[in-house]
Amino acid sequence: MSLLDRIEACHRHDISRYLPFGVGAAQIGHMRRDMAQELRRFPSVFRVGASDVRVAEHLDTFDYRSAAIDSVMRELRQEGFIRGWRDELFTVAAQYGAEPLFDLERAGVPLFGVKAYGVHLNGYVKRDGEIWLWVGRRAADRPIEPGKLDHLVAGGLPSGVKPFDNLIKEAAEEASIPKELARRARPCGALSYRMELDGCLRDDTLFTYDLELPADFVPKNHDGEIADFRLLPLSEVERLLAETNDFKFNVGLVIIDFLIRHGYLTPERPDYVQLAMGLSRRP
Amino acid sequence: MSLLDRIEACHRHDISRYLPFGVGAAQIGHMRRDMAQELRRFPSVFRVGASDVRVAEHLDTFDYRSAAIDSVMRELRQEGFIRGWRDELFTVAAQYGAEPLFDLERAGVPLFGVKAYGVHLNGYVKRDGEIWLWVGRRAADRPIEPGKLDHLVAGGLPSGVKPFDNLIKEAAEEASIPKELARRARPCGALSYRMELDGCLRDDTLFTYDLELPADFVPKNHDGEIADFRLLPLSEVERLLAETNDFKFNVGLVIIDFLIRHGYLTPERPDYVQLAMGLSRRP
Repeated sequence: MSLLDRIEACHRHDISRYLPFGVGAAQIGHMRRDMAQELRRFPSVFRVGASDVRVAEHLDTFDYRSAAIDSVMRELRQEGFIRGWRDELFTVAAQYGAEPLFDLERAGVPLFGVKAYGVHLNGYVKRDGEIWLWVGRRAADRPIEPGKLDHLVAGGLPSGVKPFDNLIKEAAEEASIPKELARRARPCGALSYRMELDGCLRDDTLFTYDLELPADFVPKNHDGEIADFRLLPLSEVERLLAETNDFKFNVGLVIIDFLIRHGYLTPERPDYVQLAMGLSRRP
Repeated sequence: MSLLDRIEACHRHDISRYLPFGVGAAQIGHMRRDMAQELRRFPSVFRVGASDVRVAEHLDTFDYRSAAIDSVMRELRQEGFIRGWRDELFTVAAQYGAEPLFDLERAGVPLFGVKAYGVHLNGYVKRDGEIWLWVGRRAADRPIEPGKLDHLVAGGLPSGVKPFDNLIKEAAEEASIPKELARRARPCGALSYRMELDGCLRDDTLFTYDLELPADFVPKNHDGEIADFRLLPLSEVERLLAETNDFKFNVGLVIIDFLIRHGYLTPERPDYVQLAMGLSRRP
């Protein structure tokens, strides 16, 4: 096992297993074929063809599309087809910053394979010039990757919330970081990956932030998503990433970026370019 | 004009205008068609087919390939086909860190369209918490992009030299940065682009470094490559990048990465993801 394995795991998928999903002329997602079959029952909302699925053309505004798709999602939920309902809306668009096409319940995002966004915070302290990273362990009841190591703060980006505002909110909920401290976090970039998870295509982009924390800061979780926190030297973080599967899949990507940006990994490594190029795919 | 235009310029190319160039089973470059025609005269060194160019199979070691290709390069130089001879060897491999296949005179690299590597240094100072970037202006007699704005320190990676050692050497030659100061530079990542320049395909990867300089440091150029230096606030750097073509093409890519990593550009920009994803292409 190696750091490269962590990156490869985030890009592994077979696009032929999915049907293109679109709105108007834009292709905006990749749909599970069983989901497409279910949607045949809703011809006034979805046009399911042999080679793609499209939102019905008469749904020609954000509000029409959002309402119609939401009613389908709720029906599929009642039938047990959609599980893990979050009551949280994500905005769907052809790409980041483009015109929003509709809002979608978060639990439905993987079924459509549309682009989703999140924020991840590298919370660290410096001891004698060495960097130590705060790492959380996900609660045992989390639907995705229970018990795995996670960032101090991480969360999906809900509809209508700006990335930095979301980070501040999550920092309070997940690690009790006071607002005035969280506001010192610095945006450092965006990473992207496209992978299969539980039979769905995840097409995610993560906004990464760095926050140097005071030496005496101790995180406390409020929302029950994290079981406990630990502070690890980068050497141990690197070892866990390279030799184990202990970290949640996408956290590995963000931490490898952190190790590169902070000069912990250097171009003298033969795999340096592969690591750096593996942190994103072209949109 | 916009920051995105600077990025797009670094990725613009029409791959169909080139012939694949390879060694053994590996495709390692993209050759200008007129170069391929010239190489038909050297059938003991190059096999020029209708759809690709390969190094002759009997040249089955690094040394054989390097010597045979070098002799061809020198003949093409004498005939005036290759100009701007540098007397500097670059190592050619299928990818970074892979087995070196041969050494190639730097002036020949664009003709073969093989991967080349360089180091770029963001040299900056902090004034009242604001970042100012040292920027050089390329000498009027430079073969590429004379008079354009450039990094404080930048250079190609010659054969057998490690990236950080090359940075230290270039820092002394290009900006008179003492070794003990240059050694504080931190590697921050790798960027890549593939673009057409003067009819050749450039397939470059740049290793980026950050160095915070003392407020009283003033760079002096030793090798004649830089005409003068200036210290600019990031707002002015961003304005020049977004509104002018004053910066050398690839310097824009490295500085946009710097603006992203230091939180000067933020995910609240609608074009943030496109900017971040545009900093590299998958190898």
